[in-house]
Order: sequence, then structure tokens, then C-alpha cells
Amino acid sequence: MDDERRARIALACTVEPGTTWIAERLAQVGAGATLAEHAAAIKRRAGSRPGPVGRLGPGEVPGMLAQMGRLGVRVLLPGDPEFPSQLLDLPEPPLALWVRGPLDLRASALRSVAVVGSRACTAYGQRATHALAGGLAAEGWAIVSGAAFGIDAAAHRAAVDMSGPTIAVLACGIDVAYPRAHDALLARIGDVGALVSELPPGSAPLKHRFLARNRVIAALTRGTVVVEAARRSGAIATANRALELGRTVMAVPGPITSMASSGTNRLLHEQSARAVADSAEVVSLLLAEDPDTAADRDGPGDAGRRAPPEGVPSEALAVLPALPDRGGRPVEQIAERVGIPPAAALAHLGVLEIAGLARRAGPGWRRCG
Amino acid sequence: MDDERRARIALACTVEPGTTWIAERLAQVGAGATLAEHAAAIKRRAGSRPGPVGRLGPGEVPGMLAQMGRLGVRVLLPGDPEFPSQLLDLPEPPLALWVRGPLDLRASALRSVAVVGSRACTAYGQRATHALAGGLAAEGWAIVSGAAFGIDAAAHRAAVDMSGPTIAVLACGIDVAYPRAHDALLARIGDVGALVSELPPGSAPLKHRFLARNRVIAALTRGTVVVEAARRSGAIATANRALELGRTVMAVPGPITSMASSGTNRLLHEQSARAVADSAEVVSLLLAEDPDTAADRDGPGDAGRRAPPEGVPSEALAVLPALPDRGGRPVEQIAERVGIPPAAALAHLGVLEIAGLARRAGPGWRRCG
Repeated sequence: MDDERRARIALACTVEPGTTWIAERLAQVGAGATLAEHAAAIKRRAGSRPGPVGRLGPGEVPGMLAQMGRLGVRVLLPGDPEFPSQLLDLPEPPLALWVRGPLDLRASALRSVAVVGSRACTAYGQRATHALAGGLAAEGWAIVSGAAFGIDAAAHRAAVDMSGPTIAVLACGIDVAYPRAHDALLARIGDVGALVSELPPGSAPLKHRFLARNRVIAALTRGTVVVEAARRSGAIATANRALELGRTVMAVPGPITSMASSGTNRLLHEQSARAVADSAEVVSLLLAEDPDTAADRDGPGDAGRRAPPEGVPSEALAVLPALPDRGGRPVEQIAERVGIPPAAALAHLGVLEIAGLARRAGPGWRRCG
Repeated sequence: MDDERRARIALACTVEPGTTWIAERLAQVGAGATLAEHAAAIKRRAGSRPGPVGRLGPGEVPGMLAQMGRLGVRVLLPGDPEFPSQLLDLPEPPLALWVRGPLDLRASALRSVAVVGSRACTAYGQRATHALAGGLAAEGWAIVSGAAFGIDAAAHRAAVDMSGPTIAVLACGIDVAYPRAHDALLARIGDVGALVSELPPGSAPLKHRFLARNRVIAALTRGTVVVEAARRSGAIATANRALELGRTVMAVPGPITSMASSGTNRLLHEQSARAVADSAEVVSLLLAEDPDTAADRDGPGDAGRRAPPEGVPSEALAVLPALPDRGGRPVEQIAERVGIPPAAALAHLGVLEIAGLARRAGPGWRRCG
């Protein structure tokens, strides 16, 4: 590991997510100098927030990575093959991502949708989430959410139930089970999908980190569906970040007599969101979107890595040989041939479908193009 | 009564509503000749529909009008002071309107909104209608609907409950109680609001007349709110006519699990309608609308009639002297001073408010400007 990479990871362990000036300095002076400047700034301003896990020196990085590796956690930096380059649309992109799970994050995010909403959701919100997220996951769309109570958990569960891809973006360290009651759900997502955090391991779920986390959900996905949310809520904040980023923002209509739908209905009234009533409507809006808006773009450093045909990651292309030229092969069989989990296979198939290289055939998939 | 007026009324009794070529011929050759042409056309095409009440000769018109007068029914022709000129936005404007009730149709329609929806509505639809139509009526907006079962009836009742103005546009003759079960509701609207039909007295509520009636509801009002409607329904047809006419179209969001909201949620998805969750949102959209779109315009023949200030009917101006210069006077007292029903006073006050001549003051109204 080179010094720059080591310094970048140390910086990611030292700077609170969402700090805007860091990206610019990083580009100007590199990670080592930025790290030194940040330490000096903290010393000067006694009141300023310390980093997430205190300070980590570059020399301590290899030890931490080894420890994380034993937990099945990998670290991604901007420019790494698996780092989703659309996160660089953010003015304060994550300095690093800690990831656990079999899904390829970049490939899955190419065909992902955020499904978010209120912790205090209603039975209607649960049902609507299950129908929408389940339908989307069944078609290979990765369901991205925050693993919170209510809509978030319903969205992840719907995807898992469909053996579809799902990604939980956490507001705490990847090794912190929060909320505690979602222990089993988080473990399951880590086994079949992906757990993601820009916070270094051990970080606590502090209040301001939820808003910072929401910007990652908004930027990672092609669009955001808000199922149920009160007028001032984290889910509405996510929708607003997605709007700023030019992503497709959708809301599920709900009874005007329900407080749990007051924020979503307001988004619709203000035309900040498009109304969606089923997964087909979500897909039609996501695919109608300008394909440049959230499609795979070159991150710094991976300009030479891109596999032909353009924009399709090599992990997805690796699935192509497992597809028949006629008829259709079920996802489970394709996954078995490639040696990856069905959810990952489904995500790759989705990417191949967008690229015109694969298509649905009956209950399975075939090659085309 | 001159010959032309008599011939126009005879024509209105002879031609089925919604016949497109009539307006053009009327302008070209006058009512007498158009009536003769129409009679000849019917004779030629054996299969074509006979007029609503068979044929009525111009000579029989005075007798029919006298009979209607005894029932409290007046007839309005385009260009008459009380004829709402925005109906001339239609390619097939009504040839005449039969009207019963104390409201001035032109003045009320200046500040009116259609509230329509499914006959087979849910308890949620009923509640939402009552909240929206009640709130709008309380602010002097005339609630226009079709007196059908379900949403229509709930809308009229909400207005009546608030002593607000309401207008029922019928798909049958004004003397026909349809639906029979709404006998009492229709009588009440005739007593405090206005019953309106373009069909001559005695006409039956035939199927095609409902669609023709819906175009009158769409054209008469500044905007249309669809509360609950299935995908293919009369209320959606009304919304589409309103869209064609450039009126503001609104829909109430509902559960995506409810068939009764499938048409409204689809309107929202397609962005054919704006979502509204309370009467304040409806009012903000209606007032934000280009004031030229549905505002009072000169009908043919009333160019010299317009009272100053421009656009405010003399019936509304007649309410001004009953308003105090400071403090606020309740609508009931204003109505008593002018000698008109409270619902009519409220409609006139709404028009004066739009013109900047009156404004709300506490629980009552005062003069301004």
C-alpha cells in the first residue's frame, strides 16, 4: 500500500463525514498534507468536533485494515474499481467506504433505487414498501436504505424475501449493530447484499451522522422513493439531497388524513417528487431519466480500467458466459455457474440488461445483443 | 322576445348537447336558418339521434318558458348577463342553460371549483371530500359537481353544511329528479345554490349526456379536483376536459392499495394533476393560475354591459354598500341587508375579494381598495 493511500484512509478515520473543504484540499495537496492541516485546524479551534474515532496515524492503518479484513470488511477509496463514481457528484464525497457483503457495490449501484421513509410508519406504509421494494428487487434493482426501523427495514426485508440485491448504508461504523434490534437483519444483509459506511469502524450513530449518511443514499442511487414521511423528517431530507443531485425523486401517495403521509403528499403537491403506485411506474421513471445523470462514470484513476463495452463493469461481464443464447436460465442457476450469490447475479444481470447484453426470457435470462 | 332568441331556444331544445358544428353555423347564418338545416339533416340521416325532447317549434317557446317560469326556472343564452362566458371556451358551448336557484351563475362561477369523483367512493373519499369542499365553500368558493352518488353528493352536502355556494350541473332536464334518491338534495341545492342544465326540461339522463355534462363542469370552473376515481371513469374524463381547456386540474392522493384511488394516483403519476391535501393547497393553485385563463370575459353581446371596475358583475358590486369600512360584518348580516341568500352573498364576496374590493376581517368581511 502506497503512502498516499495510507494517508487517505487515515484521513477518512479522522475527518467527520460531510466536511466540505476536504475534497478540494485533497485534490490540491494530497492526503498527507491535508491530514496535517486538519490536525492543526482541530488544535486551533478548541470547539471543533474531533474525528469519528479520534485520530488515526497513517502508521496504524495497515493494522486496522488487517483487523477489518478478518471481519470480512474491505475499504474502498475513490478511484478504486468498486468505488461507485457517482458519489463524486457530492460536494463532500465520502473519503472512503467500508463495505461488507458479496455484492459488487459499483455494479449494484448502477441499477439501484433508494426506498426510504419514516421510522414510525403505518401498516399501509409497510404494505406499500413491501409491494414496491419487492417488485423492484425481483427485477434486479438493488434496494438501498438505511436499516432503520419502519420503512427502511421493510424495504431491505422485501428485497431479501425476493432474493434480490439490497444495500444498507449505515450512520455508524460497519462493525456497530445499530439499531440493536436489527442485529439479525444487518447480519443477513451483510451475508447476501452489502453493508456500507463511510465512517470508520467503531463509530457511534451520532445524530448529525444520519443526515450525512442520507446524502450517500441519495447520491449512490439512480432515484429515491419516499414511501411514508412526516413533513420534517430524514426521508424528506434524503429526497431533497437527491433533488439537488438531479436524481429522480418519487413519493408514494397516501391518505391526506394520515400524518405519516403528510411529507410525501407535500412533496407531490410541490412537484418535488413524482407519484408512484407500483414498481413498474418506478422503473419507467428511472429508465426515462437521462442515462448520463446517474450512470457509471469514470472515477479518478480508473480511466484505463474500463472494460468493453463501455460502462459495463467486468464483474457484470463475467456473468455473460453463464447465459444461454436462447431460452431462459433461472437466476439461481446462473449464480451457481458463476459462483456468486443470486442477489449479486441479479444485480449484474440488471446492468447487462441496461447495456443491452442480456434480457429476461420467461422466468429466466438469456444473452442478447 | 325577438325571433332570433326564440329560434335559439328552440334550437337548444332540438339539438343534442355537444354537437360541434352548431356553434359555427349559428354564428354564420343565425338560429332560424341553423334550426331549419338541423331539421333537414335529421330527415336525411334516418339513423341520427333525434333532439332531446323531439322538435320544438319557435312558436312553442313562449309557452314553455312561461311554464318553466312557474317552476322558478330561467333560461340563459350566451351573451345574457348571467351566462358564464368561460363556457364559450368549449368547441361545443351550450346553446342555452336552464337554471334554478338564488345564485347568480356568472358571479358564482368566477370563483368556483369542481369537486368530482367516483360514485362508488370509500369512507376515506367521503371524509376527504367533506374536508376539502367544506373548507373551500367556507371561503366562498362555489362547489360545482354533478349531484351523483358518492363524491359528487358529498361535495354538494359539504358546501350546504357550510352555508356555502354550490352548483349542480345535471345530465338531465332541470325538472327531472335524478338520481331519484337525491330528490331532497337537489331540491335543497335549488333553494340555496343553483341547479343548471343545458338540456331542455323533461330530458332523460341518457348515458352519452353524462360525458357532455362533464365538459360543462370542466369549462364552468376555474379548476377541477378529483377526489377518488378509478382509472376509466367519468371523473377522469372531466379532468381531461379541464386539462384541454387549460384549467387547473388537481387530485387527492390516496392509498396505492385502493382501487378507488387508482385513477387519481395515475393522474398524479402522469403529472396531469397537482396533488392537493387541503383546501388551502387548492386555493393557492387556483389563485396562482393565470388570471386570464378562467376569469370573466366578455361573451358576445355583453360588451357594453360590463360594470366598472372591469370584470366585476353588477350583482357582486351590489353587495359592496353592505360592507363596513372597518371591522368585519358576518356574511349572514350582509346577506340580510342585500336581501339575498347567504350562499349568494358569499359568492359575491369572493368575487369582490379577487377584485381587491373586499377582504376578510375576523369572522366577517369589510370593504377595501
